[in-house]
Amino acid sequence: MTVAVVFVTIAPLGTGTPSLSRYVAGVERILQRSGLVHQLTAMGTIVEGDLDAILAVVREMHETPFGQGAVRVSTLIKIDDRRDKEHTIARKMRSVEEKLLEPGQPPPGVAITPPRTRRRSAPRGRR
Amino acid sequence: MTVAVVFVTIAPLGTGTPSLSRYVAGVERILQRSGLVHQLTAMGTIVEGDLDAILAVVREMHETPFGQGAVRVSTLIKIDDRRDKEHTIARKMRSVEEKLLEPGQPPPGVAITPPRTRRRSAPRGRR
Amino acid sequence: MTVAVVFVTIAPLGTGTPSLSRYVAGVERILQRSGLVHQLTAMGTIVEGDLDAILAVVREMHETPFGQGAVRVSTLIKIDDRRDKEHTIARKMRSVEEKLLEPGQPPPGVAITPPRTRRRSAPRGRR
Amino acid sequence: MTVAVVFVTIAPLGTGTPSLSRYVAGVERILQRSGLVHQLTAMGTIVEGDLDAILAVVREMHETPFGQGAVRVSTLIKIDDRRDKEHTIARKMRSVEEKLLEPGQPPPGVAITPPRTRRRSAPRGRR
Repeated sequence: MTVAVVFVTIAPLGTGTPSLSRYVAGVERILQRSGLVHQLTAMGTIVEGDLDAILAVVREMHETPFGQGAVRVSTLIKIDDRRDKEHTIARKMRSVEEKLLEPGQPPPGVAITPPRTRRRSAPRGRR
Repeated sequence: MTVAVVFVTIAPLGTGTPSLSRYVAGVERILQRSGLVHQLTAMGTIVEGDLDAILAVVREMHETPFGQGAVRVSTLIKIDDRRDKEHTIARKMRSVEEKLLEPGQPPPGVAITPPRTRRRSAPRGRR
Repeated sequence: MTVAVVFVTIAPLGTGTPSLSRYVAGVERILQRSGLVHQLTAMGTIVEGDLDAILAVVREMHETPFGQGAVRVSTLIKIDDRRDKEHTIARKMRSVEEKLLEPGQPPPGVAITPPRTRRRSAPRGRR
Repeated sequence: MTVAVVFVTIAPLGTGTPSLSRYVAGVERILQRSGLVHQLTAMGTIVEGDLDAILAVVREMHETPFGQGAVRVSTLIKIDDRRDKEHTIARKMRSVEEKLLEPGQPPPGVAITPPRTRRRSAPRGRR
């Protein structure tokens, strides 16, 4: 199994309104049902897991806006696939945060709007 | 002033090791010093603010790995610039989360490794 | 069948040398064997065809640098999927070029290094 | 001077029609007037030159759809900046093509719709 970390953003083009959150929510629901560890951000969703499982879900996510009436969809996928060590969202964050705690670091900021990485308490697989 | 939300990821190519966190930390420090509202994620950093101010800092971030010995740097920038209403990281997240609370939503997940959006208590500008 | 146009760029990280053309060539060979219509550019490859067929080949392309010794691979995929009309590389180019020929256009430039869109004379499928 | 190769794609969101070529043409005209070496492709434009000069033009390109009525614009920029040797569109292409000519290469394809890299015969700077 290849554990990769993937960033994905899906946007319909040519909708009648620049507000796209209902499409983003539609896409996010597919991901929530998948049981994959993921994190919604303001610019896309980060998913962690077996690369083939992720790509299968991303394919399904890409299809969602068409089901909501869109006729053109633009999807951006960025795969970070590392195989020499454990590679997860938490590990990547910890690795950078450790470096930031070394001397030379400016004083820490103030947390606002903490996004959450979601792990389904009981992954059910896709239904 | 144009308030945009920007995703940026900067990676040196051809370094002797696949571990890039010290470069990511170097880039993140530039952003922390800038006073811009931002959020570090496992796949890149999300920045909010005046587009020209952001692009000036991103230009500086892009230069950082060269100062750390890299000879080739790959930078990806995704700009989301919306001008018909207030457009911020918090607003974008809230908008999607509201849609997700509507009927049809699967049960909420469990938060792990919450990233933080940092706002410097007293932005000092770049020094 | 969904005919999409996809941009893909695949780069190994931490290879010790900033010259990546041998990896790019390895990835390109997979695409050439696929029989899919595609165009190599200086920043990535553009592929046209059935979206599922493209994603299957992209998955195979992403695997290639690992076979050449890389331990970390960064892949960027941008899908443009339009379903209300014929959607191909040639059609997209023609559409913009027609708009550019309308009044207001600056004088045409001079062609250097023309990339080519390749269509295998006899697609053999993947082997 | 830093000679970088940059891929840029600019798309308005929420325009009411999925046909975006008139916006792409508007953006392309800005680039043509800049005198920078560039190449229009079906998925974005590739620009070569001094990184600061390119970013200044990209900033102007990003603004163009707003002038054509868009209220939200999504811009993707990918910078490939290499400083240990000459780094141009032509050089990058040649480097991969040489590798492809080595043993193991499948038979060459057939060229359709050749894009062109444009170099203004007499760059006039932006007007």
